[in-house]
Amino acid sequence: MKKSLKQIIGSGLTVSLLSLSVCGAAFAADTTAADTAASAPAVTPAAPSKNLIVLIGDGMGPAEVTAARYYSKKFLNKPHLELDGGYYVGKATTYSEPSPYTTESGAVTDSAAAGTAFSTGNKTYNNAISVSNGDVAKPYGSVIEAAMLQGKATGVVSTDNITGATPAVWASHVRQRSNQNAIASQYLTSGLDVIFGGGKINFTTKEEKGKRTDKNIIPDYEAAGFKTAFDKKGLDAIPATAGKALGLFAGAEIPYVLDRDDNTPGLPQMAQKALDILSQNKNGFVLMVEQGRIDHAGHANDLPANIQEMLELDATFKTLVDFAKKDGNTSVVVTADHETGGLTLGINNVYELNVDLFNKEKHSYEYLDGILKKAQTADDIRKIVADNTGFTDLTDEEVALIMNGDGSSYGRAGGYNAVISKRLAIGWTGHGHTGVDVGVWAYGPIASLVKGDVDNTDIAKSGAKVIGADLAAATKQLQDKYIFPMFKVTRDNQTLFTAKALAEALDIKVTWDEATKTVTLAKDNNTVSVLVETGAVTVNGADSTLKGNIDNGKLYLPLEAFNKLTGKNFTWDSFNERIVKN
Amino acid sequence: MKKSLKQIIGSGLTVSLLSLSVCGAAFAADTTAADTAASAPAVTPAAPSKNLIVLIGDGMGPAEVTAARYYSKKFLNKPHLELDGGYYVGKATTYSEPSPYTTESGAVTDSAAAGTAFSTGNKTYNNAISVSNGDVAKPYGSVIEAAMLQGKATGVVSTDNITGATPAVWASHVRQRSNQNAIASQYLTSGLDVIFGGGKINFTTKEEKGKRTDKNIIPDYEAAGFKTAFDKKGLDAIPATAGKALGLFAGAEIPYVLDRDDNTPGLPQMAQKALDILSQNKNGFVLMVEQGRIDHAGHANDLPANIQEMLELDATFKTLVDFAKKDGNTSVVVTADHETGGLTLGINNVYELNVDLFNKEKHSYEYLDGILKKAQTADDIRKIVADNTGFTDLTDEEVALIMNGDGSSYGRAGGYNAVISKRLAIGWTGHGHTGVDVGVWAYGPIASLVKGDVDNTDIAKSGAKVIGADLAAATKQLQDKYIFPMFKVTRDNQTLFTAKALAEALDIKVTWDEATKTVTLAKDNNTVSVLVETGAVTVNGADSTLKGNIDNGKLYLPLEAFNKLTGKNFTWDSFNERIVKN
Repeated sequence: MKKSLKQIIGSGLTVSLLSLSVCGAAFAADTTAADTAASAPAVTPAAPSKNLIVLIGDGMGPAEVTAARYYSKKFLNKPHLELDGGYYVGKATTYSEPSPYTTESGAVTDSAAAGTAFSTGNKTYNNAISVSNGDVAKPYGSVIEAAMLQGKATGVVSTDNITGATPAVWASHVRQRSNQNAIASQYLTSGLDVIFGGGKINFTTKEEKGKRTDKNIIPDYEAAGFKTAFDKKGLDAIPATAGKALGLFAGAEIPYVLDRDDNTPGLPQMAQKALDILSQNKNGFVLMVEQGRIDHAGHANDLPANIQEMLELDATFKTLVDFAKKDGNTSVVVTADHETGGLTLGINNVYELNVDLFNKEKHSYEYLDGILKKAQTADDIRKIVADNTGFTDLTDEEVALIMNGDGSSYGRAGGYNAVISKRLAIGWTGHGHTGVDVGVWAYGPIASLVKGDVDNTDIAKSGAKVIGADLAAATKQLQDKYIFPMFKVTRDNQTLFTAKALAEALDIKVTWDEATKTVTLAKDNNTVSVLVETGAVTVNGADSTLKGNIDNGKLYLPLEAFNKLTGKNFTWDSFNERIVKN
Repeated sequence: MKKSLKQIIGSGLTVSLLSLSVCGAAFAADTTAADTAASAPAVTPAAPSKNLIVLIGDGMGPAEVTAARYYSKKFLNKPHLELDGGYYVGKATTYSEPSPYTTESGAVTDSAAAGTAFSTGNKTYNNAISVSNGDVAKPYGSVIEAAMLQGKATGVVSTDNITGATPAVWASHVRQRSNQNAIASQYLTSGLDVIFGGGKINFTTKEEKGKRTDKNIIPDYEAAGFKTAFDKKGLDAIPATAGKALGLFAGAEIPYVLDRDDNTPGLPQMAQKALDILSQNKNGFVLMVEQGRIDHAGHANDLPANIQEMLELDATFKTLVDFAKKDGNTSVVVTADHETGGLTLGINNVYELNVDLFNKEKHSYEYLDGILKKAQTADDIRKIVADNTGFTDLTDEEVALIMNGDGSSYGRAGGYNAVISKRLAIGWTGHGHTGVDVGVWAYGPIASLVKGDVDNTDIAKSGAKVIGADLAAATKQLQDKYIFPMFKVTRDNQTLFTAKALAEALDIKVTWDEATKTVTLAKDNNTVSVLVETGAVTVNGADSTLKGNIDNGKLYLPLEAFNKLTGKNFTWDSFNERIVKN
């Protein structure tokens, strides 16, 4: 992204941006204004902050925060979290939009829609990575992409797969979050400077136990100037002057805090290294840091693991806010995408929480999963639980629940978590997300912009505002290049698009002639007509080799039909599932 | 309370207070400073607000607020609650202290401890109504009692029994919240001007279907100048100039919004009348308004009923804040005591809420309870559910769950609520309270005092500060008069007190002589010795008719022993379960 943007706006402007940002001035972001700025000193007022840090607790609902505080008070002799130190400013609504793929109404968001909201300022459907809702989606520019237009350095850091939804929304665009190979590839040309997390599998091939069929793309990153690291030592060795760095510290998710070994860096270490590198850019930076596994422990209903991830988020917050305080020119905002698991701090009719048991787990359910699966007898189960928690008094019912699983895909580990949760006197209402409002914490000038009742889209809008970044400009550049249509691939491997929806998106007129059963698409002096009974296509009145396809009453056409109409040479990028306009 | 305080501080001061508060000046609250103020004009700066309104949503956790907003957006064409209109300022921790009566650790509060915290600024044990923790409790003065010292008018309004914990903490003091007859009596002499709610049963006798064995105390209220009302018409008839008013609009709780008839006033109407009356006092006022039944619907796990109570709280907030905006000299703060029921907005692994069904209940579970109990057949159950919700497709499993009940004391109504909750795709984790932090909303000068992360005790401290009320002075006056000891009543109807704890509270020295197995209590020149093997008591070396009592290794003594030691004439008030010092 960054390179192409530089090409578009011209190198003379790039120089001007660099000199402007030394004095912290905001970049008036549409190109016309920028061109003016290139010839005469800008008079736009300085943005309130030069740098922006966004910290996301994936799955960090209100109860998760309170639970971590109870632990901290009981076992760490700290009655308050770092987050509690005067940073709480409000709460955010999290709902998304109805999905084009499922019956979901959007009342409960996923991480992709929530991430699109807080990174780009737009609501979308669950699954979408920074693209709009609808049959033909448009990409939305994120605060990171808008900051690139200002010449700022940018980075994403996560304990989840780095191609997971929460990092992905900042620097990639796909219709389906599961397309993580595409996300890994998009990062390379996105302009991102720092990429630290788990998820090496989406950078490496199936032969290497990865998930790609094309090639290992890590060498491409190295060729593009990225320093790479794959363990803690490697991370430590990356110099602050690296400029660009890619760190992949686990095949998939980085192990839970409870299960992590010494070779794996924690989130505070990754965040600190990102700060060291990004803060070298005199234009400033935008950094997104995600604690992604609060969510995973929530999905699994493992509160002790959840608490340790929460505390790691809290320690990371201290790292980030300490930087911001020292730096004096940085805004920090913290929020969650949604709550996960339906955690509540109380069960039955007992006014109690067994906080004294919150520290009993040596390892997470994930670590135990394989061991539990191998258990043959009740005694095996008892021993596993006793070894991991010290609970030696499991009832027969508890053993049976673990043996038989909790009925979810978590199986025995789910049963184990249900048993432990009941002993801790905490509740969960499922393995999915819930719709409760999430907290917002902030430091620096952004605090006044995100206080009170906000929506998750306000995080992006306020983040852009506080550094003077232009989300609309970033969005325009993306939309000038890409469209993300629904599509289908025929048996003979042809990719077809919904004629009506794509025509609308491309400003093509569609008419229907009942007498001849013909659909006609028209733009400028070009027409494409389709006889729906046969699929026969005529282009500007002449027969054509193109074929229309009717499926469930909907007409589908190949991209070539639209190129005939528009006179353009759009291409289909099947890997990223997008139409490239230029 | 008010009368006795006036007597203590003198009528000259009262006059001075009245003249001071006309110009909105704060009352420097210890008597020495006040005496000075009486002789010379006060130079203390004006308090930020003349009036304070505290609105409590009992059981209003984060998820309850979000659920009500979803309803409002879907069915009322209002995408935001009144509360969402820029008033959210922070969140509060709610934990209480370990209980002397149960094994509860205080990790999950009840309404009494939470109420004591936000009315007096002190943590205590679950069950305590504005008294301290420990074997010998001391009363804590509330913001309302402190405001009475300033000559302000005061009132409590609730949809719960008016003698329930949340109103009670503001103007009464008992060790056990269940002592609601005492609370009803204490209100009479407390100085409260307006008392509106349910709970007539604690004002009337068993013969009248009430709960008192002494007498109907409503005539006492009338004799003390209270206008009384028992239905909506009666409430409407009370003039703003009434000065004092007692409205009891239900035997126990005021019916749920879903079940209420036209003769019963709603919370906004009660709150408006309270404002009309209290705002006549030129010294200002403090008003506590509680929506008490969000909690009850939470306990029962009835979300549709819960939402309607939430919306009534929201409408009441509008009434209160509209007054404050017009008045220009009023602070409003809104919070909850705790969450109830462990509500979550999502179940299983479905990312969905069936918001479109949130309006399906015609009546609450409470209204249906008797009807459900009478059902004989599955068809009876199906008909009841169909009539109330329109759901005509109950499965056999759902019918069985209702028939058999949910295993809680809610019985079939509990089963009914479980069935409905599942259909709405919302979850509950029990019938009790949970420990999640609760929201804080505010308008006026108090907003800056309660923002960010606060504790529930900060609500009281900030409330007192914003009107210049002196909590310490109110507490001192109460503690000069009352002690609330643990006690036991013997078979021969003698009331005895834990010797050691009461001695400590009264600054009496206790020594133990192993040789003679004698406990000796000494103060000034007086001694009381008890031979523990026989319980024989000597007072100042002379035999006495007093008897000690050893129970579980603890020595108990009658109050007379302490009077001998202190030279005082303390009396035992068995009705209020307190020692009266003067």
